[in-house]
Amino acid sequence: MLWWTVAVKRRICILTDGYLDLFAAKTAVGLLRYCPDEVVAVLDRQHAGGDLEALVGVGKGVPIVDSLESALQHRPDHLMLGAVFPGGQLPNKWRTAIRDAIAADMDVVNGLHTRLNDDAELAQCAAQAGRKLWDVRACTKRLTVGTGKARQTRARRILTVGTDCNLGKRLTAIELARELARRKLRAEFVPTGQTGVMIHGSGVVVDAVMADFVSGAVEEAVLEHGDADYVVVEGQGALLHPSYSAVTLGLLHGVLPDLLVLCHAPSRKYMRHTDIPIPPLDEIIRLHQAVLQPIHPPRVVAVALNCYGMSTGQRREAFDQAQALTGLPVADPVRTGVAELADAVCAG
Amino acid sequence: MLWWTVAVKRRICILTDGYLDLFAAKTAVGLLRYCPDEVVAVLDRQHAGGDLEALVGVGKGVPIVDSLESALQHRPDHLMLGAVFPGGQLPNKWRTAIRDAIAADMDVVNGLHTRLNDDAELAQCAAQAGRKLWDVRACTKRLTVGTGKARQTRARRILTVGTDCNLGKRLTAIELARELARRKLRAEFVPTGQTGVMIHGSGVVVDAVMADFVSGAVEEAVLEHGDADYVVVEGQGALLHPSYSAVTLGLLHGVLPDLLVLCHAPSRKYMRHTDIPIPPLDEIIRLHQAVLQPIHPPRVVAVALNCYGMSTGQRREAFDQAQALTGLPVADPVRTGVAELADAVCAG
Repeated sequence: MLWWTVAVKRRICILTDGYLDLFAAKTAVGLLRYCPDEVVAVLDRQHAGGDLEALVGVGKGVPIVDSLESALQHRPDHLMLGAVFPGGQLPNKWRTAIRDAIAADMDVVNGLHTRLNDDAELAQCAAQAGRKLWDVRACTKRLTVGTGKARQTRARRILTVGTDCNLGKRLTAIELARELARRKLRAEFVPTGQTGVMIHGSGVVVDAVMADFVSGAVEEAVLEHGDADYVVVEGQGALLHPSYSAVTLGLLHGVLPDLLVLCHAPSRKYMRHTDIPIPPLDEIIRLHQAVLQPIHPPRVVAVALNCYGMSTGQRREAFDQAQALTGLPVADPVRTGVAELADAVCAG
Repeated sequence: MLWWTVAVKRRICILTDGYLDLFAAKTAVGLLRYCPDEVVAVLDRQHAGGDLEALVGVGKGVPIVDSLESALQHRPDHLMLGAVFPGGQLPNKWRTAIRDAIAADMDVVNGLHTRLNDDAELAQCAAQAGRKLWDVRACTKRLTVGTGKARQTRARRILTVGTDCNLGKRLTAIELARELARRKLRAEFVPTGQTGVMIHGSGVVVDAVMADFVSGAVEEAVLEHGDADYVVVEGQGALLHPSYSAVTLGLLHGVLPDLLVLCHAPSRKYMRHTDIPIPPLDEIIRLHQAVLQPIHPPRVVAVALNCYGMSTGQRREAFDQAQALTGLPVADPVRTGVAELADAVCAG
């Protein structure tokens, strides 16, 4: 079953109260972009009555409300926490809305590192009301180490990788899976981060599992869809980013991709929160091939650029440069669509 | 303070009951090798009265006893679980000895994935007796992501890496740190696995922390000793092993080593529990350099061979091959010592 044709739709109220901007509200933006039929309201007192599309570029027509009570007229059945913070803790001022949502018979979905189920007060509220607190990052599955078994799938395995973190690996994977599905191919999307899992409704957040089990967790997820035509896996971090590279390599060795799509933000010169320059695309490609070569050599088939904030001229130049360096098809999923990426995957 | 000159010695009884062999009793062998003054008895009914050195090559003079009661005449104050198993669960038949040890006023140290503190019965016993259950793999520290800060230490940072898992990275790191200390240098050993942490008496088992925090955990441990002459970090897994590579790369990017010592078992052709051939040493060296190049380019200064089970002729051939392929000094820490490795480190 394709996840974006799910029969039972959720009715989602997203809580961003105080954090409704493009950076903090990453989860909200992902939900608004990919679950437009499911989001019924956004709760944010500061921007109540405002225009979501003007604020964050997506969410046309979805009302911003000032209280849980106002949200209720849109009959939500899920409250989803829609912002992330350094440290991943729960803001104190969100507690009232969460309690009210539970009292109004809603389940609460949380992608922060803080566990709502470990919060005595909220856990008790939920137990009394018979509602579920879903801590997306708390993996309840019994995991094991990766074994290299993903190589055996009938499905072609595709992984999005990046020159840095936070530049469009999730978006590229989702758009690509959708485009393949539009072409009548059986394409399954495998989320690996909290926003992807919240959009998808299930999955394992691999950066929160024990380090030994990263490759095993994604391997299991890939094998579940082993008989599809394509499995498109959301990548994480970057192979050279000192904060996140462990997760990145675990994903590469768990998925053992046949095909890679390399994501890049041309305006970024240094890796996020570091003074480490991003190496040229051709070097990055060789590095990804080198860490897979003896196990399952992949092909890098296309480059996905994130040209956010660039002028048309700058964009054209970035496309030309990426093409010259890699010899690969180049697209910007948000601005030019993913047709070229899907063509490259189908030919690859 | 150098950990092998710790003032307050523990009196350790190691529990291996039923698993006293070179493979399962990896933790026991490590403790016997590196804490010979602290281990007072090994509890193993099958081999009671036997000769430890004949059985596992170390532990000369340490008695093997058949019950916790017999162990008590050697006045132990710690019971350490000395074997590991696939899955990492606690064998049922060990429960009696653990209960008896707690009743006899001993602390219990456990490196398995099973948490003794989560076991209602054992936790209650310990609470009543006022004894400690130390689950070595349960990290209670508040961790964060790596930042690349390790580059700033005064200390030269050394990491042992390997062509495969389980071939001597811990032993090489410990022996090297000791040899540097014998040369009157301030050398600190940083353990990263359960056996290393049990030997050392403190530390974080990095394969058991959340994947996002591997590099951060080891970075913090390195920074604690930043003003030493040398910090020698125990490596984990292998960069190309699909089960453990996430931890390996996390360590590389957390430590950002100045110098690497490459460990290799010449008789091994495939990576453990896989059908993946181990690439030649020079390729492995280039790969380690490539994943660090843009952040902090390291030098690989020596090769540590594990020639277990090889004849003198085979050993000589393996040394010659390693030297020819890498141009580096070669040693077998167990059979030829680590003088050449320490020379290479001091020159590097």
